[in-house]
Amino acid sequence: MRIESPYLLFLGDAADQLAAKTADGVARWRPDRCVGQLRLPGCHADVGQPDLTLEQGRRAGARTLIVGVANRGGEISDLWMETLLTALDLGYDIASGLHDRLSRIPRLAERAGALGRGLFDVRYPEVELEVGHGEPRSGRRLLTVGTDCSCGKMFTALAIERELSARGRKATFRATGQTGILIAGSGIAVDAVISDFIAGATESLTPANDDDHWDLVEGQGSLFHPSYAGVSLGLLHGSMADALVLCHEPTRRHMRGLPHAPLPTLTECIALNEQCGQLTNPACRVIGLSLNTSALDGPGAGRALRAAEDETGLPAVDACRDGGAARLADALEAGARPPTVGHRPCPS
Amino acid sequence: MRIESPYLLFLGDAADQLAAKTADGVARWRPDRCVGQLRLPGCHADVGQPDLTLEQGRRAGARTLIVGVANRGGEISDLWMETLLTALDLGYDIASGLHDRLSRIPRLAERAGALGRGLFDVRYPEVELEVGHGEPRSGRRLLTVGTDCSCGKMFTALAIERELSARGRKATFRATGQTGILIAGSGIAVDAVISDFIAGATESLTPANDDDHWDLVEGQGSLFHPSYAGVSLGLLHGSMADALVLCHEPTRRHMRGLPHAPLPTLTECIALNEQCGQLTNPACRVIGLSLNTSALDGPGAGRALRAAEDETGLPAVDACRDGGAARLADALEAGARPPTVGHRPCPS
Repeated sequence: MRIESPYLLFLGDAADQLAAKTADGVARWRPDRCVGQLRLPGCHADVGQPDLTLEQGRRAGARTLIVGVANRGGEISDLWMETLLTALDLGYDIASGLHDRLSRIPRLAERAGALGRGLFDVRYPEVELEVGHGEPRSGRRLLTVGTDCSCGKMFTALAIERELSARGRKATFRATGQTGILIAGSGIAVDAVISDFIAGATESLTPANDDDHWDLVEGQGSLFHPSYAGVSLGLLHGSMADALVLCHEPTRRHMRGLPHAPLPTLTECIALNEQCGQLTNPACRVIGLSLNTSALDGPGAGRALRAAEDETGLPAVDACRDGGAARLADALEAGARPPTVGHRPCPS
Repeated sequence: MRIESPYLLFLGDAADQLAAKTADGVARWRPDRCVGQLRLPGCHADVGQPDLTLEQGRRAGARTLIVGVANRGGEISDLWMETLLTALDLGYDIASGLHDRLSRIPRLAERAGALGRGLFDVRYPEVELEVGHGEPRSGRRLLTVGTDCSCGKMFTALAIERELSARGRKATFRATGQTGILIAGSGIAVDAVISDFIAGATESLTPANDDDHWDLVEGQGSLFHPSYAGVSLGLLHGSMADALVLCHEPTRRHMRGLPHAPLPTLTECIALNEQCGQLTNPACRVIGLSLNTSALDGPGAGRALRAAEDETGLPAVDACRDGGAARLADALEAGARPPTVGHRPCPS
C-alpha cells in the first residue's frame, strides 16, 4: 500500500476541530504533501490549508482525497457520498482510516473499479503477513512507548524524525495507526492484524536498512494497559528497538477508558519496557521521556518535566514544544555507538 | 459456537499417528464424548476407538464428525470430500481446526446450507469481540504459561481439570487453540483474533462464575517467544489468573522454530509472568511447574523435576505422569484462600 501525494484533505461536515483530527495531523506533519482542504456546508473545522473545490485540487496536482474527518462510530456519512463519487470521476484515489470501509460501499467500489482508482482503507492491513522471527537486522530503530494510550507516541516519533531529517540524518517515520499511515502514506495498523502476526507485521514494517538509518516507530498502547498490552509487546519485540522514548501525559489520573486502573510509575514503565525489549535487542534502553504537557501552563509543565527527570535521571521534554525533539535527538546521537559490521550479535 | 457431542472422529488418510494428533487429543481427554473413529484406506493412525462407518456412527448417536487429521498446509484434502458430503447427508455437523475453512468450500457450504447442518471452523472466531476492561469478576482462574510454545500447556490445564473434577470441585477447561476447542466443544482461538481483542476475547471466554469455580485456561506461546509474546500477554491480562502453572520442556535447546533464541530460565519466566499478571489480578502467582518429560527416561525425568524444584522452590511435576496433576491440584487448593465476598478488591 502506497498512498500517492499530493493530498486534498476532506473535512466533510466536521462538527468541531477534534472531528478533523486526522486531517489536522496530516496538515501539521506533512504540509508539503497537501494542496488544500475541502469543507462541506456546516463544517466547523479548519486545518489552515487553502479551501479548494475538487476541481481546484486536481488542478493544483492532488492525486488522493484523504478522508480526514471522523464521526461517531467511524461511519462513512451519506452526506459525503456525492463528494467521494465525484472525486473518483475527477481522477482521485481516496484514502480513509475509518472503521467503515470505502471498499465495502457498493457505489464507491463499483465506480473505483470501473475507473481504475484506488480505495485505501488504511485501518485494514492488506499485506500477507508472516510471523515474526526476532533475528537481528541492520539499521537502527527507535520506538515510542507509553504509560498509557493516547499520550503522544505518534507526535513524538514524528517530531524526532523531523529533527533528525533537519540534521541531515537518514530517518523514516514508521506508522502503526490510522492517522500515522495517512501522514506517512504507508504503514500497518498493528492493532488490526491477527494477533499471531503482531511482531511479524512490525518486522516487515521496519526492514533491514543502512547502518546509519533510523526508523522512528510509532508506538501503540502500553505494556500496562489491561486492554491493549499484547499489541504493545508485539510491537516492542518486532521493532527490535535500539532506543525507546517513554511518552506520558502527566495529568492523567487513570488508564484511558478504565477508571479502576491506575497508571504505572515512570520507573516501573521504563524497567518493564527495557526488560521485554531486550529479548530481541539486548541493547534496548529508554533514552528519554516525552511528556504531553498541553493541559498544563508554563510553570506547571516545567514542574512536571523536572519531576520526571528527577525520578528517572533521563532527559524529559515535551517533544512538541521549544526544542524538545532536539534534546531527544541529542540523547539518541550521544548514545548511538558505532554499529558493528552489518548485524548486531545474536542474543545468547 | 457449541459443537454438539457425541463425536465420530475422522482420521482420513493420516500418514502417521502425529497426523491424527487432534483426534488423539479428543479421544484421550473426552473418550466419553466419542463413539468411534472413521479411517480411510491408507490411514496409519489409530486413536483406540472402535472403527465405525458413518452410518454406524449415527446409529451410535454421533452428532458431529470431527476432522481429527492434519496434513501439510492445513488443507482439506479432496480425498476426504466424499466422506464429508455423505456425513452431511446423514445428519452430521462437521467441525475442523484446519487452516482451510469447511465453510469456504462451495460444495460443502451449499450442502450444509441446504440441509441445515453446522460447519464449525474452530480456528476462526465467530463471536463479536469487545476490547478487554480488566475489571475484577467473580470465580477463580488458573492459566498455564510456558517457557516456550508446544511444551504442554493444553495437556496440563486438562489434567488439572480432570483432577479437580474427580475431587468433586467445580472446574471448567477453557480452550484457546484449535485442538483444545475440539476437545472442549467450545472456546476461542486467541491467536486468530484481531490483536486489539486478545484480552477481551479471553475475558469473554472466562466470564464471572461461582466463587468456588475454577476455570482452567489453556495458555499459548510464551512471554519470551519473539514471535508470539503479544498473544501470551493478552491471555495473561484477560484471564486475570489467580494461579499460574509454568510449563516447560526440559530438553528444548532453543525457542521453538528460532535456533538463535535461547530459552529463559524458570526463575525469569516466573518473575515476568507474575509481574505482568498482577496488573489485572494482584494475587496472581505461580503455584507449580509442569514439565513435559516424555523425551526423558525415568531417572532423567526425576533429575529434571528435582532441578526445577531446587531452582524455584515450587512443586514440579509431569502433569501427565504418576499423580502429577494431583500435586498441582493440592498446591492450588492449599493456596486457595477463601474468596472475599463476590468480587476481589480493585487494584489500586
